[in-house]
Amino acid sequence: MRKFMDGDFLLFSDTAKRLYAEHAEKLPIIDYHCHIDPRQIAEDCRATNITELWLYGDHYKWRAMRSCGVDEKYITGDASDYEKFRAFASIMPQLAGNPIYHWSHLELRRYFGWEGVLSAATCDECWSFTADRLAGGGLSVREIIKKSNVEALCTTDDPADSLEWHEKIAADPDFDVRVLPAFRPDRILGCHKKGYRTYIENLARVSGVKIKDFRSLCEAVKNRLDFFAAHGCLTADHGLDTGVVYAESKNDREIDGIFARCAATDKPEPTEREAAVFRCALLRFLAREYRERGWVMQIHFGAYRNVNEPVFKRLGPDTGFDVISSETGVNDLAKLLSAFAEDGGLPRTILYSLNPGDNEAVAALCGAFQCSDDGLPRCLQGCAWWFCDHEPGIRDFLISLSSLSALGRFPGMLTDSRSFLSYTRHEYFRRILCDVIGCWIETGRYPDTEYAGKLIEDICYYNTKNYFSF
Amino acid sequence: MRKFMDGDFLLFSDTAKRLYAEHAEKLPIIDYHCHIDPRQIAEDCRATNITELWLYGDHYKWRAMRSCGVDEKYITGDASDYEKFRAFASIMPQLAGNPIYHWSHLELRRYFGWEGVLSAATCDECWSFTADRLAGGGLSVREIIKKSNVEALCTTDDPADSLEWHEKIAADPDFDVRVLPAFRPDRILGCHKKGYRTYIENLARVSGVKIKDFRSLCEAVKNRLDFFAAHGCLTADHGLDTGVVYAESKNDREIDGIFARCAATDKPEPTEREAAVFRCALLRFLAREYRERGWVMQIHFGAYRNVNEPVFKRLGPDTGFDVISSETGVNDLAKLLSAFAEDGGLPRTILYSLNPGDNEAVAALCGAFQCSDDGLPRCLQGCAWWFCDHEPGIRDFLISLSSLSALGRFPGMLTDSRSFLSYTRHEYFRRILCDVIGCWIETGRYPDTEYAGKLIEDICYYNTKNYFSF
Amino acid sequence: MRKFMDGDFLLFSDTAKRLYAEHAEKLPIIDYHCHIDPRQIAEDCRATNITELWLYGDHYKWRAMRSCGVDEKYITGDASDYEKFRAFASIMPQLAGNPIYHWSHLELRRYFGWEGVLSAATCDECWSFTADRLAGGGLSVREIIKKSNVEALCTTDDPADSLEWHEKIAADPDFDVRVLPAFRPDRILGCHKKGYRTYIENLARVSGVKIKDFRSLCEAVKNRLDFFAAHGCLTADHGLDTGVVYAESKNDREIDGIFARCAATDKPEPTEREAAVFRCALLRFLAREYRERGWVMQIHFGAYRNVNEPVFKRLGPDTGFDVISSETGVNDLAKLLSAFAEDGGLPRTILYSLNPGDNEAVAALCGAFQCSDDGLPRCLQGCAWWFCDHEPGIRDFLISLSSLSALGRFPGMLTDSRSFLSYTRHEYFRRILCDVIGCWIETGRYPDTEYAGKLIEDICYYNTKNYFSF
Repeated sequence: MRKFMDGDFLLFSDTAKRLYAEHAEKLPIIDYHCHIDPRQIAEDCRATNITELWLYGDHYKWRAMRSCGVDEKYITGDASDYEKFRAFASIMPQLAGNPIYHWSHLELRRYFGWEGVLSAATCDECWSFTADRLAGGGLSVREIIKKSNVEALCTTDDPADSLEWHEKIAADPDFDVRVLPAFRPDRILGCHKKGYRTYIENLARVSGVKIKDFRSLCEAVKNRLDFFAAHGCLTADHGLDTGVVYAESKNDREIDGIFARCAATDKPEPTEREAAVFRCALLRFLAREYRERGWVMQIHFGAYRNVNEPVFKRLGPDTGFDVISSETGVNDLAKLLSAFAEDGGLPRTILYSLNPGDNEAVAALCGAFQCSDDGLPRCLQGCAWWFCDHEPGIRDFLISLSSLSALGRFPGMLTDSRSFLSYTRHEYFRRILCDVIGCWIETGRYPDTEYAGKLIEDICYYNTKNYFSF
Repeated sequence: MRKFMDGDFLLFSDTAKRLYAEHAEKLPIIDYHCHIDPRQIAEDCRATNITELWLYGDHYKWRAMRSCGVDEKYITGDASDYEKFRAFASIMPQLAGNPIYHWSHLELRRYFGWEGVLSAATCDECWSFTADRLAGGGLSVREIIKKSNVEALCTTDDPADSLEWHEKIAADPDFDVRVLPAFRPDRILGCHKKGYRTYIENLARVSGVKIKDFRSLCEAVKNRLDFFAAHGCLTADHGLDTGVVYAESKNDREIDGIFARCAATDKPEPTEREAAVFRCALLRFLAREYRERGWVMQIHFGAYRNVNEPVFKRLGPDTGFDVISSETGVNDLAKLLSAFAEDGGLPRTILYSLNPGDNEAVAALCGAFQCSDDGLPRCLQGCAWWFCDHEPGIRDFLISLSSLSALGRFPGMLTDSRSFLSYTRHEYFRRILCDVIGCWIETGRYPDTEYAGKLIEDICYYNTKNYFSF
Repeated sequence: MRKFMDGDFLLFSDTAKRLYAEHAEKLPIIDYHCHIDPRQIAEDCRATNITELWLYGDHYKWRAMRSCGVDEKYITGDASDYEKFRAFASIMPQLAGNPIYHWSHLELRRYFGWEGVLSAATCDECWSFTADRLAGGGLSVREIIKKSNVEALCTTDDPADSLEWHEKIAADPDFDVRVLPAFRPDRILGCHKKGYRTYIENLARVSGVKIKDFRSLCEAVKNRLDFFAAHGCLTADHGLDTGVVYAESKNDREIDGIFARCAATDKPEPTEREAAVFRCALLRFLAREYRERGWVMQIHFGAYRNVNEPVFKRLGPDTGFDVISSETGVNDLAKLLSAFAEDGGLPRTILYSLNPGDNEAVAALCGAFQCSDDGLPRCLQGCAWWFCDHEPGIRDFLISLSSLSALGRFPGMLTDSRSFLSYTRHEYFRRILCDVIGCWIETGRYPDTEYAGKLIEDICYYNTKNYFSF
């Protein structure tokens, strides 16, 4: 029997161990999509207890606690930090097979050096141990990032953002990790959402463009694209929630009409078709702009958000009440990509569905939108995302991707996280990747040549570096 | 090589064997959802041959026989019991990998002590052996239930049912197994189905409530809820066939109108939207009532029933002509649960989809509807159901559940069966569960502490006991 | 560690090796669905280099190359044969886990005797080696077919085809492999497609029937069915692209109207419903005809074709721009099969979905449409198809099929290929099949009796022979 999470964790053959040690373990991390707050990097924050790091904003852990019947008081309520940690520690044994179980222990080991098994019984020991380590220094935000061997990372930013914290980080000679903004124009696209008028007014202000129709909206967006580009931005990200809906506009006047009506109020009520028409038109514009700038367009779809109305009213978004959509619209996504192709070609594009049932369909879809002119594939499938980001999910994803596409071009892992301790997810992923390829070699499915190591290095690091032009 | 289905069947590591022996094997069974006939328990029926037990009502076996080209004469037709058994025995070797193959052999071993391998060659030996054992006693319905270590079971009952057989069983001092009714109001909800007027008239009669509109319908339902509660009922069950369709009513008058039109005839023809509006309104009422009574609401969805029209006309329902729906409406289910939440909170709820492609979406969905106030999770995913209830299906389900939710709170197995020999499905499930967790421990994915045993005991027995308040 | 693709490739237990050697390896092949060109068989073509065999028409390989960023020049463009082969060889290492990786090496080993590992480094060696072997003889189309132990194969043919090449092959006493046409009336059913008038005019000409309404269209079709039957045809094949849409016609005049309007132009524009009404009516007619002739009706659905508009305009169909549909319409397929059942019963029918998420739903669906009167199952699920045809896809398919249906009746593998080297896919499949069943025996899930060998022989050969009446 293996020891729990020992040095060979998830590496089940000698070849897997060798591949990991020689080709994966020491490569730097480029974390090309995450949700960490650049201000915390600029200010080099440091936590005083593990609850701050783990339970202040991590809706994965909140969901797990709720699923174990923990009272909201100990989740987002007014219990003390210690009480919240105790509540979390107490449910840990029930999370057998959950990635939180592995991630948490990896984080305790790699950043704190605590080798225990977390439960109600060990809660106090872990609480004190981690508090001592936090007090002892070496675990500020920047120290964690450096310790994690991060070379570059991309935050997720609204087009109207001032990027002041990115500027501060870039200007600081003491910190050499590239912290780049990523352009996330969900609010511009969301003409059906509350506060649209206010948002557009703000966009007009920061861009200095008077927004009176679709064309001037695009001008304002261009202004912000240039602003982001000037701050080193290499990628845009889109959350096409619930599912992709493709709709063509009859003519430019229709789009102008929809936009005018929505931007005139903070409670817009376009029909579903109108919202889709506007969104598709703007996405086509954006895709062209990204392509011209050489940016990577990331499309995340299939998250059905805030499904629990009364809780949403109480706790707001991103608190653990999003689910996997059962109607993700992969066929409509195909139509959208075809529209991009008709407009002169796709930008480099990465597709992520939240529904693992789409794994194969998305892999096949990417294959139909390549037509490279620069030696790089044009359209890639992104790594197992959010609810799919766990060991079996990653294995299933790697199997689907390699079976239907070219594994060797896969851009690998990203954390998609709000936490600075999440870089261990790259380790987690790399172990699984090495185990999969190691198993193929051990079982005679792939030859034991230098290509195996190259494959792993490409997936862990070089593919991302090249695809995004880091 | 292992012997076929030996004592370590499905237990592939020493840890798995230990966990099963120490924590799973001897626990009682609470079979919280099945379709057995309480009259047979009350009358303590006994079969005279294996065909009565296996082939009189088991549409799983009928489907398997049809899929092997067996003539309907030997399935539901007028062939003799022996001929039917021979037909079934003959196809057994073709069912490699099918749960029927394992279930049948488990039943032959555990209840009859026949250790052979069933096929055309061994048909006669098995026929005689089982007939002798049946003649020898010890295999009446009650004896089977006791031998299976069943502590409690819930049948599935129409709200208009008199529950006379439940009363008789409860009044019998010689039988100490709790046989509780479960409330299954599908016919009240099915305002689009033939015979609706007759059904509602009958409901009015047994409830003593004059049903003239939606409000009085609810009164009648309340009456039956009280009646079931008085008979120990702890749970209601719903079959939302094909898929969940969420539709909100404009106002109470609309619902009254739909109900009035449907209840006026035995061939109602509401539009799909009307039927959905009525169904959703009544489900909201029911959810409130269940919550107030502390009942568990089970929702089974995704069965597309009676798809073969000509055969349905000939053989009727529940004869093996239901299939897995490809449009199960998980997003609409989210809306329905949100409506329950708005009405004051969900009752304790268990969700089962017949489409295994929904595993992950349902696991995620449950996580968004917890908000516990009693230390228990509010919304759980139910075990791999019907077409998913086989070894790979259960393994996939356990992986999905543990990856996306809290395995430690899972309420475990139920038979969902019409047969008294099906309790071996609990053994089957427990072996798989112990093998999964045993494998995690052996491979360093979960620590070898006392929590592993507790996890298994909870899933096999205590979670159900607590969640339903048995 | 195993050698890469050695003699025991994919056979991971002694039982698997034994089953393969004794029951699978030497059985003939009946390739009941493929897309090879009968003219090439009639003319016994031979290639002069590996590019002709591998890269002239294989859109699987084209997709793989595009997915690795290869310029179209080296795929369908004007690069030399050697350059194209070099481009393909160079990306091979990146296709780890892709079936092309295994298929290509199997083909190199079995037909050429080249035992190397293909990459940029070995490209030239392989190019010369295969050229020498091609020059040395023994690798004409007929020689490949004979070497592959093919007993019979079915091409895919338009109803208007003259079948002249089939006649020539049948008349040739030097070639004893049965090369039969299969009836593929997609163009007759495609009343929404460009060129419909021209097609129908041609159909009228070859059938000698004046087509003026739906009835006379059916007469023309009957004529062609008889013509195909006279040429030994045993099966029809249907591509119900994107997804099945079931629609009933109001009356015969509606169908006549739709047909008349569409057949009057080469740019027909029926509504989606109209096209579906016409298609369903014609499919019902065809199903009856197939049943009366004892033909097998194959239905392939779920391919969303030509999704990349600009590339489609440039390269045309079947060039690697089809994807997996996310809305395949399994519920509508159930309605269509029910309509067949109402019309007097299904023909023997095989269903294939391109979306692996449908595996379970289709397996269940088949079980509801059996009702055998000839000892054969009526409705079968076809083998993992196209994007699903790889080792994990076949394993998943076998698990799903055996769990939900009767594995023993499965008609096994087909190549679905345009290439004469693809018969190694039967070997690939047989190895996986033997490994799955071997594993069940080794782990005590299936007994080690003579039935295991029979199961394998049935699936590899006899089931197909009997089901199609070869």
